[in-house]
Amino acid sequence: MTDTTRDRAAIILAAGKGTRMKSDLPKVMHPVGGRPMVDWSIDLAREVGCSRIIVVVHPSQSVLIDHVKALLGEGCIAFQDPPQGTGHAVRCGEAALKGFAGDLVVLYGDSPLVPASAIEDLFAALGTGAALGVLGFEAETPGLYGRLILSDDGDLDAIVEAREATPDQLAVTLCNSGVMAGDADTMFRLLGKVTNTNAKGEYYLTDLVGLARAEGATCKAVQCGEEDLIGCDSKADLAEAEAIFQARRRTAAMDSGVTLVAPETVYFAHDTVLEADVVVEPNVVFGPGVHVHGGARIRAFSHIEGAEIASGCMVGPYARLRPGTVLETDVHIGNFVETKNTRMGKGAKASHLAYLGDGQIGASVNIGAGTIFCNYDGFLKYETKIGEGAFIGSNSALVAPVQIGKGAIVGSGSVVTKDVPANALAVARGQLVQREGWAISFRTRKSAEKAGSTQKD
Amino acid sequence: MTDTTRDRAAIILAAGKGTRMKSDLPKVMHPVGGRPMVDWSIDLAREVGCSRIIVVVHPSQSVLIDHVKALLGEGCIAFQDPPQGTGHAVRCGEAALKGFAGDLVVLYGDSPLVPASAIEDLFAALGTGAALGVLGFEAETPGLYGRLILSDDGDLDAIVEAREATPDQLAVTLCNSGVMAGDADTMFRLLGKVTNTNAKGEYYLTDLVGLARAEGATCKAVQCGEEDLIGCDSKADLAEAEAIFQARRRTAAMDSGVTLVAPETVYFAHDTVLEADVVVEPNVVFGPGVHVHGGARIRAFSHIEGAEIASGCMVGPYARLRPGTVLETDVHIGNFVETKNTRMGKGAKASHLAYLGDGQIGASVNIGAGTIFCNYDGFLKYETKIGEGAFIGSNSALVAPVQIGKGAIVGSGSVVTKDVPANALAVARGQLVQREGWAISFRTRKSAEKAGSTQKD
Amino acid sequence: MTDTTRDRAAIILAAGKGTRMKSDLPKVMHPVGGRPMVDWSIDLAREVGCSRIIVVVHPSQSVLIDHVKALLGEGCIAFQDPPQGTGHAVRCGEAALKGFAGDLVVLYGDSPLVPASAIEDLFAALGTGAALGVLGFEAETPGLYGRLILSDDGDLDAIVEAREATPDQLAVTLCNSGVMAGDADTMFRLLGKVTNTNAKGEYYLTDLVGLARAEGATCKAVQCGEEDLIGCDSKADLAEAEAIFQARRRTAAMDSGVTLVAPETVYFAHDTVLEADVVVEPNVVFGPGVHVHGGARIRAFSHIEGAEIASGCMVGPYARLRPGTVLETDVHIGNFVETKNTRMGKGAKASHLAYLGDGQIGASVNIGAGTIFCNYDGFLKYETKIGEGAFIGSNSALVAPVQIGKGAIVGSGSVVTKDVPANALAVARGQLVQREGWAISFRTRKSAEKAGSTQKD
Repeated sequence: MTDTTRDRAAIILAAGKGTRMKSDLPKVMHPVGGRPMVDWSIDLAREVGCSRIIVVVHPSQSVLIDHVKALLGEGCIAFQDPPQGTGHAVRCGEAALKGFAGDLVVLYGDSPLVPASAIEDLFAALGTGAALGVLGFEAETPGLYGRLILSDDGDLDAIVEAREATPDQLAVTLCNSGVMAGDADTMFRLLGKVTNTNAKGEYYLTDLVGLARAEGATCKAVQCGEEDLIGCDSKADLAEAEAIFQARRRTAAMDSGVTLVAPETVYFAHDTVLEADVVVEPNVVFGPGVHVHGGARIRAFSHIEGAEIASGCMVGPYARLRPGTVLETDVHIGNFVETKNTRMGKGAKASHLAYLGDGQIGASVNIGAGTIFCNYDGFLKYETKIGEGAFIGSNSALVAPVQIGKGAIVGSGSVVTKDVPANALAVARGQLVQREGWAISFRTRKSAEKAGSTQKD
Repeated sequence: MTDTTRDRAAIILAAGKGTRMKSDLPKVMHPVGGRPMVDWSIDLAREVGCSRIIVVVHPSQSVLIDHVKALLGEGCIAFQDPPQGTGHAVRCGEAALKGFAGDLVVLYGDSPLVPASAIEDLFAALGTGAALGVLGFEAETPGLYGRLILSDDGDLDAIVEAREATPDQLAVTLCNSGVMAGDADTMFRLLGKVTNTNAKGEYYLTDLVGLARAEGATCKAVQCGEEDLIGCDSKADLAEAEAIFQARRRTAAMDSGVTLVAPETVYFAHDTVLEADVVVEPNVVFGPGVHVHGGARIRAFSHIEGAEIASGCMVGPYARLRPGTVLETDVHIGNFVETKNTRMGKGAKASHLAYLGDGQIGASVNIGAGTIFCNYDGFLKYETKIGEGAFIGSNSALVAPVQIGKGAIVGSGSVVTKDVPANALAVARGQLVQREGWAISFRTRKSAEKAGSTQKD
Repeated sequence: MTDTTRDRAAIILAAGKGTRMKSDLPKVMHPVGGRPMVDWSIDLAREVGCSRIIVVVHPSQSVLIDHVKALLGEGCIAFQDPPQGTGHAVRCGEAALKGFAGDLVVLYGDSPLVPASAIEDLFAALGTGAALGVLGFEAETPGLYGRLILSDDGDLDAIVEAREATPDQLAVTLCNSGVMAGDADTMFRLLGKVTNTNAKGEYYLTDLVGLARAEGATCKAVQCGEEDLIGCDSKADLAEAEAIFQARRRTAAMDSGVTLVAPETVYFAHDTVLEADVVVEPNVVFGPGVHVHGGARIRAFSHIEGAEIASGCMVGPYARLRPGTVLETDVHIGNFVETKNTRMGKGAKASHLAYLGDGQIGASVNIGAGTIFCNYDGFLKYETKIGEGAFIGSNSALVAPVQIGKGAIVGSGSVVTKDVPANALAVARGQLVQREGWAISFRTRKSAEKAGSTQKD
């Protein structure tokens, strides 16, 4: 956020049907980097210091409406129904901005990768006296994008639609992103002059540039990268935006000292924090809410969400850490182990095949292979607490709520249904019965049975 | 399949040794998209309506011969021994086609990606009076490919081998794929004129064009993409064909509304069906026989074969669904869970670490972590049935054949060896025994033992 | 190793701080293909027959020093402190090479992909009378690389730093890798003449060429690929080197007859051996020490380290084989199974959810789902032995040390704490108790409890 003397607001256009997504989910609710696209735009508006943020939606998009209200409150929703173009959409947001005076930026709910620096540049352009600032990009294939036509002194002279452009104008590769900023009053005043006398019968936001120029006002173009401005109308666009996001995060992680053995196989969420000297092996997926401290190693095929992982931890391969997992220093989580809402103390280990849900595990505890925290009775969830230095034998089931005392030992294969005192041994096992030679007669009987059966596999 | 007044047949050349594959498996049996390459060619022939399909093999390829017979029946095999070129191979198929009159297309068992539309175009060319139609492609690097030389009116004038081509001919980039169609009688008649007076002493199918032209007949070239015509002689070719296949399926899935978070990490089989609004997270492998209905989510690191997955299901991460799995609406399958030949009713859940083989699981059943269906006694497999709403406690073993009644509850850690009535509780557990302070003496003893040992890890 | 009449030595420069790695680990200790970069250079020196290998390190790099000493012995370390350039570094190695006469090559600890053939070429150049040989590469973007300026007869005339190059020299694309060979005495003698009167105040190894030329000696340039010479200064460089290494190994594997369904998803270690007709499905990671014999199949999502896998084995999906695993012919390891330090006899199977640590498993043994070898008591590890043809029921815990006799059967859910004779049945289970109707009252009670609770999930 930059220091600024003028108040700032954003209107985020999000009412589009997104038919090409072929989805029941509103377009801007589709995630990139593990969070809905609209959240990226909201966050962008916050990052550049917008005190007011209005999201323009269609009244039918209840999932989106609820989501935005939860983030921004009731007053931040404006409705556009029916959709009549981008200019119309911005006007739909005017009432919700009542009382606001200052600079307004128009953002899009389906453009998750716009950098804050570009919006700051737009506001800065306004600060130098421009009535409007428009965000543009050098297009590799300009095609049908509107062209930003600059005057000799570099100001923005016009936005020309490709189909109405002269050959000289078509040769221009600086294209219109649709992102625009200006003084809010001016923008709404000019929007009142926009007409819909065009092929689609829509009100275009881009017309503002012509109207401002006609009044003799100065407009500016600000540039950022084409990838930054990707808009996602289809599942393929979404995958492309995700790929750009992931590539950037991987590069940034390596630049900051993270070792990614095979960067192209590591998936980040928007808020993943990996410190320097973290090592990440191939095929790791980070969901939201992960912080891995320096010196920890995340082994191959791990899936980590909502977890704090301290230095010296060794996680995976095939570790599945779910939200609420906190691993203190030097914890080892091995293959086919799931944790959820569980804290493990320094040096604790669960190396194989375990489910650790709703647990408090002390330092240096050893959880044997096949251990299950039975945290759910079909109705409620309960907690398992294990004291420092306890040893849980393999294939044990700890039926929560239950506490295992410090230094206690649970014998392999036990079902523990009541608390175990510190330093006690707890064993719950059937008596071992052996019948000599039984297997021979069993095999004789079963072989005959199988021969008489047509069953396979 | 297009409507056509002429009968159609295909000869599929598959006798090649495939030495470069360095494999005991016959070349055309190597799979692309999870099925043998030769199946793609057979399927192609069927798709364009061939009433007769002959596969030309070498007598030594018993695995291939058995496979083709299983698909097409005894009469569809023709032998080529020893191999004497493509023209010879087609002649080897003549006897098997006895009595056939109509159009014949020559296909290759190692070209799995030829589209039906291209073959339809070839047949259509015959319908306009051409004696022969040849499938060509614009080669990015024509190199040693035979060139298709067109006359001024666009007909196919000759096929010229690269080593015999003039510089002008070498500059032609339209190349011969080897796929050829024509009236069957005409083709076999012309094949009788093909000689082997060439460097390799082989009979070339391509010579038919020259022979037909010499009789004044018209030939036509039909074009399709170079990728469509990839032939697989080596493991690298095979991987390339697989990559092309996968890329196409990923794009097609996204175009139809499937969300692929990281499309490059999702692997399809030839018959994978993902409906619109299915979400597939990174690193998912689909084997043959999968149908996922709209609104289901397949989480990361899942491996799915032979499974029907209804709307609202949540599968994975690390779910391994094997053939015969049917998940009704809203089923949850979580991490490290394997299902095989098992149906789960609406809303049933198995969230962690379980093996569910040969099961019938009712609606709303909850399968606890670590549950095993003991379906195999070393000889035969047996079924486990669980009634609606039952709750199977964690770490339980259900020894099939066994039935758990509706609403029954199985206590954690139980081995259930006989049927449980509806709404009953079944518990099979050892008595929990605790010995206070035992762990202290144990540690003292073991510490001494370890100190006296050189054993590590 | 080529036959050579002259003795050979290598000095490996490894004292660089590697600040850009942003890691506590010394730069050259970062791995490529699963082994530290410096090991690649040491191995290269060995491969070309160097009888003496000196690694120049900084005294602060204790991890590196210990590592090198373990590989090469005490006398192979030379210290450079403070670093004063490459020429200085080589001089730091002179004392350690005392008594050596013959050819010396200077290698770098952060260049893991230099091929032995290139170094052989350098030595061969010396054999033709050159005083010095320098390894160069055709740079795609020469940029700031030093240029190798050749004379008309192809000898190396000079190495010119980019910043001191004329435009003609800058147009040269043959660049200096820094790898240099020469007669050891000559090199050290010339190094004595190198000055540090340059911007950085360092002694440059490259100055040797000018000094040799000034004496009228001949120098030669030898060329290899730019990728071969990648130097790793950052985590991004490291990932790039890894990617080059992996791409090469994948191609080589396919060329030798290995089927890689999705080569880009298979990760090799430096010493991975996959024989012809091995099939590897997508997403497989090989750690060091793996040998897979022809005809075995490694299924998706498997992680294999330190394992010998015989023909006919089927491994995975989601198999995790750890060091010391030996699978004899036709063994099946299925999903979510971990093996460590365990041998499995011909035809043995562990198909689901098991931990097999420190085991000796006989031929045709069947290990049921959920079986755990309890090999650790918190202090020491113990062995589990299972005789041929035994059947271990699901969810069993075998508490080591323990022996299961040939043909014995262990009932599902048993905890086996003492040896089982051959052909015996062993069962250790709680008595199954059933309470009719209990579940109904339980649900009534719990529903009320849940209604009174605010707990979720």
